[in-house]
Amino acid sequence: MRWVRYRLNNLDNYGIMSDDGIQEVCGSPFDSYEATGIIISPHSVDILIPVVPRTFYAAGINYEEHVREAAILLGIQPSFPSKPDIGYRANNALIPNDASIIIPQDATEKVHYEGELVVVIGEKAKHLSEDDALSCVLGYTIGNDVSERNWQASDRTMWRSKNTDTFKPMGPWIETEANIDDMVTKIHLNGVIVNEFVTKNMIFGVAKYISIMTRYITLYPGDVIWMGTDGASEDLQDGDLVEIEITGIGTLRNPVTKER
Amino acid sequence: MRWVRYRLNNLDNYGIMSDDGIQEVCGSPFDSYEATGIIISPHSVDILIPVVPRTFYAAGINYEEHVREAAILLGIQPSFPSKPDIGYRANNALIPNDASIIIPQDATEKVHYEGELVVVIGEKAKHLSEDDALSCVLGYTIGNDVSERNWQASDRTMWRSKNTDTFKPMGPWIETEANIDDMVTKIHLNGVIVNEFVTKNMIFGVAKYISIMTRYITLYPGDVIWMGTDGASEDLQDGDLVEIEITGIGTLRNPVTKER
Repeated sequence: MRWVRYRLNNLDNYGIMSDDGIQEVCGSPFDSYEATGIIISPHSVDILIPVVPRTFYAAGINYEEHVREAAILLGIQPSFPSKPDIGYRANNALIPNDASIIIPQDATEKVHYEGELVVVIGEKAKHLSEDDALSCVLGYTIGNDVSERNWQASDRTMWRSKNTDTFKPMGPWIETEANIDDMVTKIHLNGVIVNEFVTKNMIFGVAKYISIMTRYITLYPGDVIWMGTDGASEDLQDGDLVEIEITGIGTLRNPVTKER
Repeated sequence: MRWVRYRLNNLDNYGIMSDDGIQEVCGSPFDSYEATGIIISPHSVDILIPVVPRTFYAAGINYEEHVREAAILLGIQPSFPSKPDIGYRANNALIPNDASIIIPQDATEKVHYEGELVVVIGEKAKHLSEDDALSCVLGYTIGNDVSERNWQASDRTMWRSKNTDTFKPMGPWIETEANIDDMVTKIHLNGVIVNEFVTKNMIFGVAKYISIMTRYITLYPGDVIWMGTDGASEDLQDGDLVEIEITGIGTLRNPVTKER
């Protein structure tokens, strides 16, 4: 099932994507809902981010090749995380599918994409074992963890490098039936595949993260966990189109604009 | 004006504190509201955290004495931040006034309080000058940035040290008429003052933070910014009562319990 969130007549609503269009529902996937029987054309609505996160979690460093590439860039030895310490991103930066990533005037040329699997939590959860961890997951969507690499190196926190407005595209929908063991993440820049990796090749997987996190913290419906990216990335330029495709979920596409 | 948020008959509502009790309103301080004329006894309701943050910002290191004390603890030279790089905390950890701070079973003895001024944003804001920065502020509340110091040293992010469930008491209300130039923060442990500092003695003040942040990020109604703490702190123990008092706002009080 594919949950979309959209705006129609100034109202934000959830619906279910089908071949016929968007089936309007009353309610949301995070509580109860009922189909109204009305079908809406996707072209007649504004597609929104599929959830406004209650808490916006991010694994950050979670693929080996990405650690090696970052180390080369910084001229240091690669350092792999020894345990799954979760981090955070911020809601101000979120934009939906098709919205523009806007590079600030004073950013350097090192603004990069990072294609990421996003876990959407559907049920309140605490003290989950690794075996039970996925029971709290509603489904999956796609994130682009846009990053200004020079700010990332110079700022004490990553507030500006990672959370500048428009730096967190997320969408286009929440897919509830995707299989995380059978996904490939492909990043297309202006129609050309520039990076491709097996999504499950994480240093710490989704179940491991949820299990460790819920020892100390309660997860709530609407929380999201961005799972990190693999490989190297290229500089984004004014006029670029970046698409993140993940098997079984879909494609998140966003144009890039330089602030004038 | 003092805005309280409370639960009555399973409904969460905003009201205005007065000498007579809580004046019920329809709406919230973040959009429009109208007084209903009904007065409710504060003893008949559950007081909630005064706002569920849209984004939960935290200055972290923002007072010189706190930097020096932390350096002594870690056996290193004090290092002062050169610019206001904002950080983040997480909503799962928030608890209201009077709720218990619960120390996990496996925490070390180094669980500490940190009394902090909390800025509550009332208006959407971008590109504010330092002179105009406070125009987006609705008011102020109080936070206790409870921290497990050994986890703080060992974890790559501060997810567990700072954001374990119950580690972020906030309240009791939002005071819209407090003067940040005329505040003293006092921390009482079991009725004894253990720390006291001039609240405005920040390395970077509220206006400076908002001005720098809004160059890159949009602030939204309901965002909160925790401004950091000064001085040293003591170990919290099972059965303790910790109270953070800030001039012109009030007192945030929370008992401490060790998980059994």
